[in-house]
Amino acid sequence: VRILAANPNATRAVTEACLALARRAASPGTEIVGWTNQTGPPVVDSAYRDSLAGGLLARALRDLRPPPDAVVLMGFGNYGTAAVKELLEVPVVSMAEAAMAFAVPLCHRFGIVTTTARMIPYTEDLVRLSGFSEKCAVVRSVELPPPGEAMTADAAILDRLGEEVRRLRDGDGVDLIILGGARLSPYADGLRTRSVVPVVEPVATGVQFAEALVRLGLRQSKAGKYASPPPLSGDHDGLSP
Amino acid sequence: VRILAANPNATRAVTEACLALARRAASPGTEIVGWTNQTGPPVVDSAYRDSLAGGLLARALRDLRPPPDAVVLMGFGNYGTAAVKELLEVPVVSMAEAAMAFAVPLCHRFGIVTTTARMIPYTEDLVRLSGFSEKCAVVRSVELPPPGEAMTADAAILDRLGEEVRRLRDGDGVDLIILGGARLSPYADGLRTRSVVPVVEPVATGVQFAEALVRLGLRQSKAGKYASPPPLSGDHDGLSP
Amino acid sequence: VRILAANPNATRAVTEACLALARRAASPGTEIVGWTNQTGPPVVDSAYRDSLAGGLLARALRDLRPPPDAVVLMGFGNYGTAAVKELLEVPVVSMAEAAMAFAVPLCHRFGIVTTTARMIPYTEDLVRLSGFSEKCAVVRSVELPPPGEAMTADAAILDRLGEEVRRLRDGDGVDLIILGGARLSPYADGLRTRSVVPVVEPVATGVQFAEALVRLGLRQSKAGKYASPPPLSGDHDGLSP
Amino acid sequence: VRILAANPNATRAVTEACLALARRAASPGTEIVGWTNQTGPPVVDSAYRDSLAGGLLARALRDLRPPPDAVVLMGFGNYGTAAVKELLEVPVVSMAEAAMAFAVPLCHRFGIVTTTARMIPYTEDLVRLSGFSEKCAVVRSVELPPPGEAMTADAAILDRLGEEVRRLRDGDGVDLIILGGARLSPYADGLRTRSVVPVVEPVATGVQFAEALVRLGLRQSKAGKYASPPPLSGDHDGLSP
Amino acid sequence: VRILAANPNATRAVTEACLALARRAASPGTEIVGWTNQTGPPVVDSAYRDSLAGGLLARALRDLRPPPDAVVLMGFGNYGTAAVKELLEVPVVSMAEAAMAFAVPLCHRFGIVTTTARMIPYTEDLVRLSGFSEKCAVVRSVELPPPGEAMTADAAILDRLGEEVRRLRDGDGVDLIILGGARLSPYADGLRTRSVVPVVEPVATGVQFAEALVRLGLRQSKAGKYASPPPLSGDHDGLSP
Amino acid sequence: VRILAANPNATRAVTEACLALARRAASPGTEIVGWTNQTGPPVVDSAYRDSLAGGLLARALRDLRPPPDAVVLMGFGNYGTAAVKELLEVPVVSMAEAAMAFAVPLCHRFGIVTTTARMIPYTEDLVRLSGFSEKCAVVRSVELPPPGEAMTADAAILDRLGEEVRRLRDGDGVDLIILGGARLSPYADGLRTRSVVPVVEPVATGVQFAEALVRLGLRQSKAGKYASPPPLSGDHDGLSP
Repeated sequence: VRILAANPNATRAVTEACLALARRAASPGTEIVGWTNQTGPPVVDSAYRDSLAGGLLARALRDLRPPPDAVVLMGFGNYGTAAVKELLEVPVVSMAEAAMAFAVPLCHRFGIVTTTARMIPYTEDLVRLSGFSEKCAVVRSVELPPPGEAMTADAAILDRLGEEVRRLRDGDGVDLIILGGARLSPYADGLRTRSVVPVVEPVATGVQFAEALVRLGLRQSKAGKYASPPPLSGDHDGLSP
Repeated sequence: VRILAANPNATRAVTEACLALARRAASPGTEIVGWTNQTGPPVVDSAYRDSLAGGLLARALRDLRPPPDAVVLMGFGNYGTAAVKELLEVPVVSMAEAAMAFAVPLCHRFGIVTTTARMIPYTEDLVRLSGFSEKCAVVRSVELPPPGEAMTADAAILDRLGEEVRRLRDGDGVDLIILGGARLSPYADGLRTRSVVPVVEPVATGVQFAEALVRLGLRQSKAGKYASPPPLSGDHDGLSP
Repeated sequence: VRILAANPNATRAVTEACLALARRAASPGTEIVGWTNQTGPPVVDSAYRDSLAGGLLARALRDLRPPPDAVVLMGFGNYGTAAVKELLEVPVVSMAEAAMAFAVPLCHRFGIVTTTARMIPYTEDLVRLSGFSEKCAVVRSVELPPPGEAMTADAAILDRLGEEVRRLRDGDGVDLIILGGARLSPYADGLRTRSVVPVVEPVATGVQFAEALVRLGLRQSKAGKYASPPPLSGDHDGLSP
Repeated sequence: VRILAANPNATRAVTEACLALARRAASPGTEIVGWTNQTGPPVVDSAYRDSLAGGLLARALRDLRPPPDAVVLMGFGNYGTAAVKELLEVPVVSMAEAAMAFAVPLCHRFGIVTTTARMIPYTEDLVRLSGFSEKCAVVRSVELPPPGEAMTADAAILDRLGEEVRRLRDGDGVDLIILGGARLSPYADGLRTRSVVPVVEPVATGVQFAEALVRLGLRQSKAGKYASPPPLSGDHDGLSP
Repeated sequence: VRILAANPNATRAVTEACLALARRAASPGTEIVGWTNQTGPPVVDSAYRDSLAGGLLARALRDLRPPPDAVVLMGFGNYGTAAVKELLEVPVVSMAEAAMAFAVPLCHRFGIVTTTARMIPYTEDLVRLSGFSEKCAVVRSVELPPPGEAMTADAAILDRLGEEVRRLRDGDGVDLIILGGARLSPYADGLRTRSVVPVVEPVATGVQFAEALVRLGLRQSKAGKYASPPPLSGDHDGLSP
Repeated sequence: VRILAANPNATRAVTEACLALARRAASPGTEIVGWTNQTGPPVVDSAYRDSLAGGLLARALRDLRPPPDAVVLMGFGNYGTAAVKELLEVPVVSMAEAAMAFAVPLCHRFGIVTTTARMIPYTEDLVRLSGFSEKCAVVRSVELPPPGEAMTADAAILDRLGEEVRRLRDGDGVDLIILGGARLSPYADGLRTRSVVPVVEPVATGVQFAEALVRLGLRQSKAGKYASPPPLSGDHDGLSP
């Protein structure tokens, strides 16, 4: 099984960090290949940069040869997820959807921690659009330092995350936490030693979700929403020259 | 008041048709300026082409000089609506949101007719994301001939639309119809002579919504979701070179 | 265009204040006419006084000659809104519905501030019945002095409103505020200088909504819920002698 | 226990018919007193006539001396229900709310049959406002002859009701029927012999609900929504002279 | 009328206490018979002990001869409620469902107080499954001493309950409280003297609900969800030997 | 990895059939062990037999030595799922929850086909309780012959299932089907050759979900709803002697 770990932004350091997490999570026999959306923005920190990332990412993934057995989108957002599902014939997994899908049977209700207050409404829209709002109690944020720096765990941030987990549990009745962004993934292990509340790390979850789909012979339904786009006369990818 | 009627796709015939509808709907003293998303796809008929349209459209609209007093996005979809709201300081109106906002106080529940079965799930997601699902009973479609042809009313299509309106009223308890796409707008008058059910035509509604916002001194909230994207070091528009 | 600004209660000072706000909001060529529900209660501060106001208001508005081009109900409540929509052939706009309709596309979620704690459940029911509960995060109140006094802004109340706006933004994730009653309208300008959160003032919004409906040739659907009441034999207005 | 069976409209024949049903449903020791809203409309067939009925009904019930032990509002609608709950210190029961409250634990989901297509949206709003929409699958109608005639069961109407019950069961998965209006009450027995689906007749249900409240020492909460209206200076009932 | 007050757990002291409460609530002519689920767990404090209680309780109640006129399940939980409704031909009332059904028309929204933090998610699931989540604002808990001790009111616990009622009213906008367990029932009178917020005590409410069903000739619908289980060949109760 | 495939009913033929399906779905290195709930009912065809199955199944699974690495409950129902999650320290997966969790990211909305009309309300409750009702459009049934016979595919039933899939797609806008019971699993392959709509077979899905949880180090949260039941003095399993 060959899985493409696709980073929707253009920052290779993020790709490398995700790749390491993904490989740690992969089963024996699964090969993980990294991919960076080089034409996209360096970080997705707004609806604007999300929309810049999406269409070009979908087109580039469609044109990969040979195609992988499955694609995992390594971002906790939209990033043209539906577009990629339309264009590809192989299973496409958003790591955000995978994290929420695994969380539902494990908890009474989950909370998501994202990386900046600005992304809370964006993430709430994502939850609603993905069909998981029944089980998502709340989205909160812990401010991270500017992106682009090394993706390693910082003790002060771990402390703030630990406090946020306590607040989610005691104040919101949350009994499972989802880390809402690859930049938070390095904190998963540290949080798990501090709290009995399960912590879902989406990179690993996305890889396992993709592997399972391949084994089950399942992929996104091509019988409706995710059917291939209609062909355009004399124009293969829908962008005007 | 100077309002930009922005066509998210690259087909100038659609821009021209929308411009005519928009000018008919504008109040005295309102100037309507047409704009075509020349770098976008010729038609938005899938999530893929929606995602291609969005980011580039937002960037182009941001860079217009002088800025208009308001922008109306002449598509019944996402098309990077949130991205445009982030980037611009003037009011940004999606004609789909305007049509639904005006419909709510006028009816018990509304139905939307879109231009192809494939766009039904896409439109349902739009309704949910826009916050109008409480009042939207159903989304249906009437197949139109391939886009790109002249935007004039066709008698056979008008008949099918008339039947669909009857079905929506009798079968779904719908008492107001929204035409879910600019290509259906030429049928508004014909449908109104056939049925007492009000028909909301979104181009005109979008223009009136934008005019009202300008007069009221209102625009999208910049205090949260639609704040300007954070600046990026040495990169003005977030796209990697 | 001639718009009737109808005050559902019997206090002329409120009518005058609304009239001033409405005229400020009207477009050139729009004439605003004030109207007071002289047979109604002096203030609508309970479901009881709402129900006293409603039916008689509807009957009186039906009998006005000549009819206006549109009616704006200048109350943030029910006040027989559906009854007036049934009886009149011209567009009828509740200023509460207009305020919420304009708010939806402008924000992630809105909050409403009303004039007394007692009216919070009443307002929550109004939001739900109007079909806007998906986007309304919360209803709060700031106590005003007894009604009937002059409708001018008071510095102490402005301070409390400003604090409430902060609380709504920081605590509830609200990024737009609706003033839930004409008595709060004089505070709109003051609040706008204090906060970047948009403040929707419903009197002006109602006028703009009504103007737009007239220009669009739209009104409440008479094809269902708001059809004229069935005629009664030998009784023109449904009240027993 | 003395229960007032209050007919919100002015037609005494309806009061008499409800009174007979109510007395049949009362427990030993319960006295049922009929009351007709003589200042109201002869029938409540629209939001307009509902709004005419409500406020005056509330005021008249408040002034009854001696007050009854409980009031049952014998209409399947709003009719100022909240206003009466505010004004009275004794338990106030809407027969519609009582019917739905009893139905919830007895079924998977219920359907309501009302007396005319026009009242379907009105009844749907009532269900939503009463807090029972989770369990109400659908509202349907069977046309009755003009009101005012004798309230006896008609064989042809019974047949149509029987067909509607079948349709609700087979098509909508409904396993309990509520008769949505006193004029349908005479058909309850006939329907029960035709179908195993339970039929909730609201007049009897309202009486039993009221009796139970009296025995339990419960009434509408006066600690919030239904607190007495604030006093008005020099005006006892809130209507201007 | 002969009503069986069925305690789903095996602790006779609870049965006795419920029986006393039930008899106090019963109308003249109603006989209350106590019943203890001797094969069940001593307390239902988890989903596990709930599931142990349910099936055996249903089977035992089915085999009672002669059958009572109605059964009230004296627990604030699932306890096989649907199973008992399937097996019995007489009305079956869960005291939790009865309490919520009576609460809905009496309040704007209710809160439930349960006996331990652990049972909050369990109770929230119960509310959702019962169809009352629209009106239930929140579930809270006050820790009780270990079960099995005498069911009498304790002053310190009454103080904590009183504080919780204040918090529910002021913080959550709750205007009616439901005591979520028979062990809280002895505090109902004390709470009522401390607060104007109505307190629904479920044992008494369950008895009144059952009486009303018997008088109305209603019971759970046997036309769908609660039909008798299909017969099994050579096995009367579905348990393997 | 050693996974226990637990059949909640007492019919060994069902266990054997599930075991074959599960082994086909397992990854290399995963051992599947079958287990039959010998003290349970031969089939779970009602809430009653569900409640008989649940508690005893939970107790028996708790006492297995050595414990498996994960448990998959091979029934499309409740069957004490929450109870098992409480009692066990290893991951517990209901195959119904696993099927829905995998379905959500793959479709616009899914439909469930169950084995008898009687189980439709039961399954709807399961969907709601599991937190997946946003994405579940409808539950339908196709009657199977009496259980206990061989679990092989029957051509006539396959035809009826095929028709039901068409109806779900064309009438309900469903673009993914979940087979709602192990007895339908043998039809998965046949349906896939007939339709492009993806068919989720829950036995295989449950196995893959369990494997993924083991690899991810995740299990049900023990920090709230699924914490171990409180200990009882002198009674190890909560059942009275």
